[in-house]
Amino acid sequence: MPIKSRVRTVPHYPKQGIMFRDITTVLKDPIGLRATIDELVRRYKDVKIDKIAGIESRGFIIGTPLAYALGVGFVPIRKKGKLPAETIGHDYALEYGTDRIEIHTDAISKGEKVLLVDDLIATGGTAEAAVILIEKMGGKIIECCFMIDLPDIGGRARLEKRGHKVFALCEFEGD
Amino acid sequence: MPIKSRVRTVPHYPKQGIMFRDITTVLKDPIGLRATIDELVRRYKDVKIDKIAGIESRGFIIGTPLAYALGVGFVPIRKKGKLPAETIGHDYALEYGTDRIEIHTDAISKGEKVLLVDDLIATGGTAEAAVILIEKMGGKIIECCFMIDLPDIGGRARLEKRGHKVFALCEFEGD
Repeated sequence: MPIKSRVRTVPHYPKQGIMFRDITTVLKDPIGLRATIDELVRRYKDVKIDKIAGIESRGFIIGTPLAYALGVGFVPIRKKGKLPAETIGHDYALEYGTDRIEIHTDAISKGEKVLLVDDLIATGGTAEAAVILIEKMGGKIIECCFMIDLPDIGGRARLEKRGHKVFALCEFEGD
Repeated sequence: MPIKSRVRTVPHYPKQGIMFRDITTVLKDPIGLRATIDELVRRYKDVKIDKIAGIESRGFIIGTPLAYALGVGFVPIRKKGKLPAETIGHDYALEYGTDRIEIHTDAISKGEKVLLVDDLIATGGTAEAAVILIEKMGGKIIECCFMIDLPDIGGRARLEKRGHKVFALCEFEGD
């Protein structure tokens, strides 16, 4: 099933010049949602994974059905101040200013094997911060998994340079 | 499986006097995640549903694995300005001020049967706004489904007064 052909491109969102890759057109179709998750299940069903960590909020949309299907736990990585219990966080640079992501301190135990999931990788800034956070907790990143990679923006290379494996269901070049 | 016993209560979050019901302790355990979704699958597997609409962002966590397991499409209902394509929205009152939720105009077709999903119902303000939005689009609400109901706060009664069925996996009274 050609998942890429079901992704909608919204020009100039959220700002002029950005071609936004919108996954809602994939997910609203039962065949698109099923094919997306099942392709990831086939990739990871024989891999030892303890937790799937999903990045707020579209990472929840891919990460939770995959965790359910694989029979592993799901832990959310959220923007600052959104998690209710004790957290640890990591600050990372944006084009202008900084942002912060957080995870519950009881989300991942030392030595656990973690699959990091988000919908899309562009600059890889948030994904890199998530990787750092998971490693701070003693988690071992099995792979960083995305529905969409924009390779020209460099996020995949950034994660690979840190020694991480990166997988994406499809790519859009020229972004 | 006692899902309720796995919910963590965080006192005084996000403010003094609020007992926050935290579902992350259910989800991080593969048995908790599986039992939560499977109980909902048993409830809805013989019900005709076209779409599951999940409310940002914890509604995504329950709604997408359920949509995957039932073989139906998933559509996100998001805070103002978060969806990239054409939307319709609904403003609703908060304790102080107003908020707005939005949905893509192509998310639901006229006559489609929609299951509304969120993690928790308290005042029911957001859920009621979501119901109004889905009905504006011609969708028919099959049921409003939550992991947790806080019945003393009145959200369930608010939705039932509008003629909607409400289901929750567990209740916390006295909140």
